[in-house]
Amino acid sequence: MQIRLGELAVRLGVSLRGDDEVVVDHVAQLDSAGVGSLSFLGDPAYRAHLARTHASAVILKESDAADARVPVLLSDNPYLTFARAARLLHPYPEVVGGIHPSAVVDPAAQVDPSAWIGPLTVLEAGAVVGPRVFVGPGCILGEGVEVGADSRLVARVTLCAGTRVGQRALIHPGAVIGREGFGFAKDGERWVRIPQVGRAVLGDDVEIGANTSVDRGAIGDTVIGHGVKLDNHIQIGHNVVVGDNTAMAANTGISGSTRIGRNCTIAGAVGMAGHLEIGDNVHFTGMAMVTRSFKEPGVYSSGIPAMPNADWRRNAARFRHLDELTRRVKQLETLIANMNATHEREES
Amino acid sequence: MQIRLGELAVRLGVSLRGDDEVVVDHVAQLDSAGVGSLSFLGDPAYRAHLARTHASAVILKESDAADARVPVLLSDNPYLTFARAARLLHPYPEVVGGIHPSAVVDPAAQVDPSAWIGPLTVLEAGAVVGPRVFVGPGCILGEGVEVGADSRLVARVTLCAGTRVGQRALIHPGAVIGREGFGFAKDGERWVRIPQVGRAVLGDDVEIGANTSVDRGAIGDTVIGHGVKLDNHIQIGHNVVVGDNTAMAANTGISGSTRIGRNCTIAGAVGMAGHLEIGDNVHFTGMAMVTRSFKEPGVYSSGIPAMPNADWRRNAARFRHLDELTRRVKQLETLIANMNATHEREES
Amino acid sequence: MQIRLGELAVRLGVSLRGDDEVVVDHVAQLDSAGVGSLSFLGDPAYRAHLARTHASAVILKESDAADARVPVLLSDNPYLTFARAARLLHPYPEVVGGIHPSAVVDPAAQVDPSAWIGPLTVLEAGAVVGPRVFVGPGCILGEGVEVGADSRLVARVTLCAGTRVGQRALIHPGAVIGREGFGFAKDGERWVRIPQVGRAVLGDDVEIGANTSVDRGAIGDTVIGHGVKLDNHIQIGHNVVVGDNTAMAANTGISGSTRIGRNCTIAGAVGMAGHLEIGDNVHFTGMAMVTRSFKEPGVYSSGIPAMPNADWRRNAARFRHLDELTRRVKQLETLIANMNATHEREES
Repeated sequence: MQIRLGELAVRLGVSLRGDDEVVVDHVAQLDSAGVGSLSFLGDPAYRAHLARTHASAVILKESDAADARVPVLLSDNPYLTFARAARLLHPYPEVVGGIHPSAVVDPAAQVDPSAWIGPLTVLEAGAVVGPRVFVGPGCILGEGVEVGADSRLVARVTLCAGTRVGQRALIHPGAVIGREGFGFAKDGERWVRIPQVGRAVLGDDVEIGANTSVDRGAIGDTVIGHGVKLDNHIQIGHNVVVGDNTAMAANTGISGSTRIGRNCTIAGAVGMAGHLEIGDNVHFTGMAMVTRSFKEPGVYSSGIPAMPNADWRRNAARFRHLDELTRRVKQLETLIANMNATHEREES
Repeated sequence: MQIRLGELAVRLGVSLRGDDEVVVDHVAQLDSAGVGSLSFLGDPAYRAHLARTHASAVILKESDAADARVPVLLSDNPYLTFARAARLLHPYPEVVGGIHPSAVVDPAAQVDPSAWIGPLTVLEAGAVVGPRVFVGPGCILGEGVEVGADSRLVARVTLCAGTRVGQRALIHPGAVIGREGFGFAKDGERWVRIPQVGRAVLGDDVEIGANTSVDRGAIGDTVIGHGVKLDNHIQIGHNVVVGDNTAMAANTGISGSTRIGRNCTIAGAVGMAGHLEIGDNVHFTGMAMVTRSFKEPGVYSSGIPAMPNADWRRNAARFRHLDELTRRVKQLETLIANMNATHEREES
Repeated sequence: MQIRLGELAVRLGVSLRGDDEVVVDHVAQLDSAGVGSLSFLGDPAYRAHLARTHASAVILKESDAADARVPVLLSDNPYLTFARAARLLHPYPEVVGGIHPSAVVDPAAQVDPSAWIGPLTVLEAGAVVGPRVFVGPGCILGEGVEVGADSRLVARVTLCAGTRVGQRALIHPGAVIGREGFGFAKDGERWVRIPQVGRAVLGDDVEIGANTSVDRGAIGDTVIGHGVKLDNHIQIGHNVVVGDNTAMAANTGISGSTRIGRNCTIAGAVGMAGHLEIGDNVHFTGMAMVTRSFKEPGVYSSGIPAMPNADWRRNAARFRHLDELTRRVKQLETLIANMNATHEREES
């Protein structure tokens, strides 16, 4: 989409320095920008690119504006302003209401006339699809599923029976929401499934990545708060509760019944045991192994960073004796303390 | 489904203490139960909830029965009895035989008249679907696939050519069984695929989680034993053998040709190297890194639990020198032994 | 497929020692081979099987040929020759051009007449499918997707809008290529999505495993080089670049904007942070935690191998004090050095 800078500044609520008739029609990075490009300078480390850019306009902080030779849009938070500008330039196509003839829609499903149901999608009985929802190709909405207004199921999303999705969700291909989670009782050596009768309930403005799974509750619901963002390949176990605006990166797994607070960030490939309590504003770095509750805000980490294999072999072998090593150091401390005491006695 | 307590006790084979005319129609936890709720007390830690519960009935051990003010069903294993009761109250809908008109069924596929083939499901030539099997929407059963009686493919399950599924399987959306695994020969810098001509063979009573993959064998089969339960996002490499009743939690990966025994439990995000031998009754805790065979029963673990980031940074930096540290301690021990020896010589 | 050994030797470009009229029709391992089996001896550790095998022919090095009692095909690289022979014996069925009547193909999609579009597959506007491409059942090719000649999408593959796939690709079920990656700006406590306007671009001879995700670029492309092989459940973040012939095993995750060189091998469950530079011929062992760039060729590792739980508990507890332990050792060294100095002064 083409937008004049004058109009863009108004729609973004920022001030423009430069020709308001210049037109931008796409976003680009400073160093690969050209005619029509809107770019941004967020990190001052890239300021050198600014003088040389061929962008038609740049979003930046006022303090960086002096270096620019092109029109600039001034923002205290260039990255955020850029995000909004990029959505204006690259909008999702407007949703046109309708049901593709190849979709299989149960007569007892309700689809808002402004919603789109894509090809080869299945809606089972009692599924309710709200206004302006986009349901892409190959999705499955089980019995009694509800999807709130303006949500977007990109393609091949599976919402199992009873799942609730709030408004403005964005759900990517391969996501499986609301399957029966991993609950079994032991009968001798055999496992007997515990029926999972809760639901998966997603708030508003939730995003679910590709091939990510959110299991339904065993009894009671699995709850994903408003504004939660989940990357790809994430596993959310039954009865997990994730607080508002918490974000998780790919390959992370949260075991059943763990409760995570608001505004947390959980990096990639983190593993959390079940039945933990994680407070608000808690941050875990990548591959952290979370085996206990962390209620205080802060950054928590674990893991051993990679090193040359030969070093690692030696060090990892020693780790197996770390407890013994610690005891040996304690013994040395005792020995030396004794020697010093003896020595002092001899001296005196 | 509604059941009178008298009938429920008979069907569960347990004894009832209380009014056998009381009706239950769903399961609930002790503290959120109400009229019609069947609850259970497994862990004595929750005994305080028992006196206050509004459940219509509670399953518990005789030793906990004294605290109950509602009808009780007595069981030596309340959790197992609860699992069975929950299935009675929340049964899967009975499978009605038939093929949805939108399904694409090859004329050379065989579907038992009592099986259901859901909408937009594909059955290729030679696929065989047994009695009372439920194949949900969006599934793909490749050439020569066989699915045993009473199995349930929830939705969007992919069974690649030649896959065998036993009886009473439960397979969740996104599962991919029997794809050609990761086998290549090197031709200079290039990789040349080794055709994978084995199958994936699942025993009876197997459960496969959402977005879990079980690769077919390279030569010979990948074998998932009877009663094996796999959670979501699990990777089973080619020619892996998993013994009966072994359970694995989400995000775990088992590399090719590893053999795992019976009755093992493998927690979440465990990684196993290939060509290992894991015995019966072996248990790995979450995120364990399994690089050698473990043939003896027991619990095995690895990984560093998360800690405040500043502490972790300091400790992880030291790990890089753990071998050196161990040598320094050894040197100190030698020095002190020498000093003591010298001192004793001087004394004498 | 049946092939005479004489013909097979010619097609493989190797020499045959034995009866060229013998026919093989499948591959098998030495110890389970029978009439019609073609087997191979790669690892001399299995030489004992050679004398006893019932295979109709064996591929091996000339230096191992003396032990064989059956016809042999001589190769300097038996495993590679076996890979090629196995493909001759077990070819993919020839692709027959056509579009299954249940497929939903937009009029503005272009399908080469020699390509096959399977049942219940969706091609959106502008999708271009090249010669002899096999698109299996349940695939989704979004707007403007291009798939090069002789590629094979096994089943249920999702190629999001704009994705480019080169020639001779092999993509397995559940793969999601080109979804909008994980990019957000913060607006107070809320996350605002950054539109992702780049593409996912796959070179020639690429393989993508089951349930693996490759995100499109944020600005600019995510690039998977020629001959790259990705196993199952791999996450490739936006703007990652993977060099030619690099292979990654299952459950690995690469964070955004990391660049990986050529001819690397990355074992299972490795995690890489974002914005790293990994050189050519770099190899990471399983579960390695990669938090910095590694530009030099070599093998790099991390992680703690599993051990009995009681040992692990003791050692992991000590790890929390490893920095302190190191300081204690330093202090001991200083103390002893001082004691020795004092002692020497006293002696002199």
